[in-house]
Amino acid sequence: MGWAGRELRSTIGRSGKLVLSIQNIERDDPGDDEIIVRVEATPINPSDIGLLLGPADVSDIAVSGSAAEPELTFKVPEARLAGVKVRLGQSLAVGNEGAGTVVAAGRNATALIGKRVGMFGGAMYADYRRIRAEDVIPLPEGASAADGASMFINPLTALGFVETARSEGHKAIVHTPAASNLGQILQRICVVDGIPLVNIVRSEQQAALLHGIGATYVLNSKDDDFNNRLTDAIAETDATIAFDAIGGGSLGSDILQAMERAAVQKMPAFDRYGSTVFKQLYVYGGLDNAPTMLNRATFGYAWSVSAWLVFHYLRKIDAATLARLRQRVLDELTTTFASHYTRTIGLAEVLQPEMVRAFERKATGEKFLIDPSRG
Amino acid sequence: MGWAGRELRSTIGRSGKLVLSIQNIERDDPGDDEIIVRVEATPINPSDIGLLLGPADVSDIAVSGSAAEPELTFKVPEARLAGVKVRLGQSLAVGNEGAGTVVAAGRNATALIGKRVGMFGGAMYADYRRIRAEDVIPLPEGASAADGASMFINPLTALGFVETARSEGHKAIVHTPAASNLGQILQRICVVDGIPLVNIVRSEQQAALLHGIGATYVLNSKDDDFNNRLTDAIAETDATIAFDAIGGGSLGSDILQAMERAAVQKMPAFDRYGSTVFKQLYVYGGLDNAPTMLNRATFGYAWSVSAWLVFHYLRKIDAATLARLRQRVLDELTTTFASHYTRTIGLAEVLQPEMVRAFERKATGEKFLIDPSRG
Repeated sequence: MGWAGRELRSTIGRSGKLVLSIQNIERDDPGDDEIIVRVEATPINPSDIGLLLGPADVSDIAVSGSAAEPELTFKVPEARLAGVKVRLGQSLAVGNEGAGTVVAAGRNATALIGKRVGMFGGAMYADYRRIRAEDVIPLPEGASAADGASMFINPLTALGFVETARSEGHKAIVHTPAASNLGQILQRICVVDGIPLVNIVRSEQQAALLHGIGATYVLNSKDDDFNNRLTDAIAETDATIAFDAIGGGSLGSDILQAMERAAVQKMPAFDRYGSTVFKQLYVYGGLDNAPTMLNRATFGYAWSVSAWLVFHYLRKIDAATLARLRQRVLDELTTTFASHYTRTIGLAEVLQPEMVRAFERKATGEKFLIDPSRG
Repeated sequence: MGWAGRELRSTIGRSGKLVLSIQNIERDDPGDDEIIVRVEATPINPSDIGLLLGPADVSDIAVSGSAAEPELTFKVPEARLAGVKVRLGQSLAVGNEGAGTVVAAGRNATALIGKRVGMFGGAMYADYRRIRAEDVIPLPEGASAADGASMFINPLTALGFVETARSEGHKAIVHTPAASNLGQILQRICVVDGIPLVNIVRSEQQAALLHGIGATYVLNSKDDDFNNRLTDAIAETDATIAFDAIGGGSLGSDILQAMERAAVQKMPAFDRYGSTVFKQLYVYGGLDNAPTMLNRATFGYAWSVSAWLVFHYLRKIDAATLARLRQRVLDELTTTFASHYTRTIGLAEVLQPEMVRAFERKATGEKFLIDPSRG
């Protein structure tokens, strides 16, 4: 019979314009090992916004299309086109993760029919998703679709940070921006696991939020004595690894400098190459697209600045580790790994210009959830 | 009886001035496992200049002291003092490596008397060096002190690059600035070992020099089409690791970008996180003290920028690897690992203002050797 429904698409044309559209498509019936899931909740993550809006300029949005198949058109600044050359002309489905109810299943997956599942794998901004049964996880009894919508990226990223820190021999972690949904999850994991976490935020409100969930170290980067307080917190905790989603500017460099200062304070004699304490900064996002500035002279000769991407991380770990992490997410789905949404919208609402501007701001603490059943 | 002789010292006083001086000191007789070496050749490496001049301003030099014990005084700009706080007030001996003749030995090292040796361990800018016998290597028959003066830092650095590249799974190497003494050694190793090396230089003269010792890929960063040619060379060689002694500015970032472009060209489909090809940039020097600028958006999410320091590297490798590397340096001392000096000076000449300015420029290809017997 097929499953008719809407799907959101993002396309950058050869002309250099980005078009967001909602198309009516029909999905084939599931194969033997596949299921059809009616999408009931799918978050707008920073990782989705990158694909959704790419390098488009959101200050100038043209509305077109029909009520049934609406379209938004954005200009892409010339200078940014080179970076997305490979996607030109491709109509891309969006939405890394989501949750919903299984409405049909192939012969090997019938046990899933009627179950509510969390899923991962792209193209979730749609009424229906055809997906391999092995790519979904049935939610615990009583969990809502909203509870399961974000059970992959943020939870596995936060757990990935902790696993990475442990496997690379670090005792404590620095994180920024720390008041994000991800930051809150990370803080809750660190409380449970007893790992000192130095949180860097940009407001007192964010600091209060983190203290409310058990944070010991919360520093406001806008404070005058921020660098000294950061050095003190690092000296106390021996944090030698940091995860930074801001990326641009010199905050990452300042963190490495504070780590080096804390290490040098404990050195008995001068060494012009600085301490031998190895300092690792992982950049896992680009909230600030400006170049990363490294003031190397301030942090010696034992450091590394690297990209950290959950998708690469998940490919790197073994099956047993992945299974352990996934089980922990399920076990603590509505406690440690709870996500909070500031707004739930329908699929068509994603194509309202003011909505695009709102989620494109990527304000810390704000998080949008799409529920296609709302229209 | 003791061994009387001169020693060069660098001191940054609490007042913030850096003083270079030559002092007459007397060394104790060697202990049972020690020897006294008369220093006959010791190079001025970039790693020595860091300790020698630290953050001093060489544009304004005051001359004082006596003919027997001369002194140069430099101002250290206020802003740079914080970075050297730990060495304030310490009189530091200078000179990482050198070669000379063994003139006295403790009871367990008498076999070394009269031998010419290469040595490593600091304080070589002196007439005599007291040193543990295990820290010297007898030179091959017929090798001069100049041949053995630089047998540690540059050779072990270049070999360390190749070992690091191999052990981390890279097939080809990018190096800049490639026409240095170190760069020439690296090129010769790569010719012998069959490793593709992409050399980045800043002049046609430097390019010719490298072609003369067998280089296949030499790119001039001043050429208009440099970035495209770099991408092509990387695409051809599959170079995914780079060693950069410049450090400041965006050249390192440009190298990562070229690596990413070469990788993306080979990708079948768009991925907004870029290629999964892991790209490693090692910063092993700071010829340009400006901040390192990373234009992350141009090179995806599989990269690392790290410090590489030969001293840390040598501490990390096992004894068998170190022995193998040292033996190779001895075996190929006057071929693969030959150093060329543009100027040989006496110890007292180091304290001539125009000389300080000349070696502080760290011009690629220029290299100074100190021979204390010249005065």
